[in-house]
Amino acid sequence: MNLYSLIRDVKDFPKEGILFKDITTLLQDGEGLVASIDQIASKLEGIDFDLVVGPEARGFIFGVPTAYKLKKGFVPVRKPGKLPYECIEQTYDLEYGTSTIEMHIDAIKKGQKVVIVDDLLATGGTTKAMIDLIEKMGGTVEKIVFLIELKDLNGRDLLKGYEIESILQY
Amino acid sequence: MNLYSLIRDVKDFPKEGILFKDITTLLQDGEGLVASIDQIASKLEGIDFDLVVGPEARGFIFGVPTAYKLKKGFVPVRKPGKLPYECIEQTYDLEYGTSTIEMHIDAIKKGQKVVIVDDLLATGGTTKAMIDLIEKMGGTVEKIVFLIELKDLNGRDLLKGYEIESILQY
Repeated sequence: MNLYSLIRDVKDFPKEGILFKDITTLLQDGEGLVASIDQIASKLEGIDFDLVVGPEARGFIFGVPTAYKLKKGFVPVRKPGKLPYECIEQTYDLEYGTSTIEMHIDAIKKGQKVVIVDDLLATGGTTKAMIDLIEKMGGTVEKIVFLIELKDLNGRDLLKGYEIESILQY
Repeated sequence: MNLYSLIRDVKDFPKEGILFKDITTLLQDGEGLVASIDQIASKLEGIDFDLVVGPEARGFIFGVPTAYKLKKGFVPVRKPGKLPYECIEQTYDLEYGTSTIEMHIDAIKKGQKVVIVDDLLATGGTTKAMIDLIEKMGGTVEKIVFLIELKDLNGRDLLKGYEIESILQY
């Protein structure tokens, strides 16, 4: 199934000059939704892992159904103050300023193997911060799968040494 | 499978005096995650519908895998400014102040049948606002399924006339 035709280009979002890849048109299409999850899950075939990790909010959209299909647990990564239990946090650089993400301190046990699933690889900053959190907790990142990769932003440079795949490349 | 044992009580979150039902301990457990989605989906057996609608961020966690399992589309409802395309919005009352949610203007076509899936029925305010959005767009709400229902908050009163089920009741 051609998923490219289900992605909508939205001009000037979130700011002027950016051509945003809108996944909601894909999600609205039942066949498109199923195919996108199946294609993400197919990239994890043969990988031995315990948990899927994904960031709010769009990472939940693809990460949880992938975990469901592969019968694995899911660990949410969230913005500060959203997770109810004790957290560890990681701050990372943005183009202007910084951002912080959190994970529960008991989300990953030492030695657990995890995969990261997210909707978009752009600069890779959030993904790198997630890797840092996972490794701080003693987990290992076995593979990272994105629905969309914006190749011009060179996110793979920041994620060197990790196995990465994406379904749709622009 | 007993899902109650996988929910963690967290005291004083998000504010003092509240005993928060933490679903992350359920999500981390692969069998628990699968069982929760399967139980939500089982409540939709025999319901004729086109789309699952769910609010960010925890509504995505249960809504998308349910759509995936039942091979339906998914429509995300988000906080203002998060959806890239043109939106309609709905403002609703909270205990103190108001909140607003948005949906894309082309998310639901006139006559489409939808179900709402969310993690929690508390006062029902967000759910009622979602119903209003769906009906403004010409859709009909066929059923609403929650993972957790806090019965003392009487959310069903606000949602009278709609078919509601929950998996875990407190």
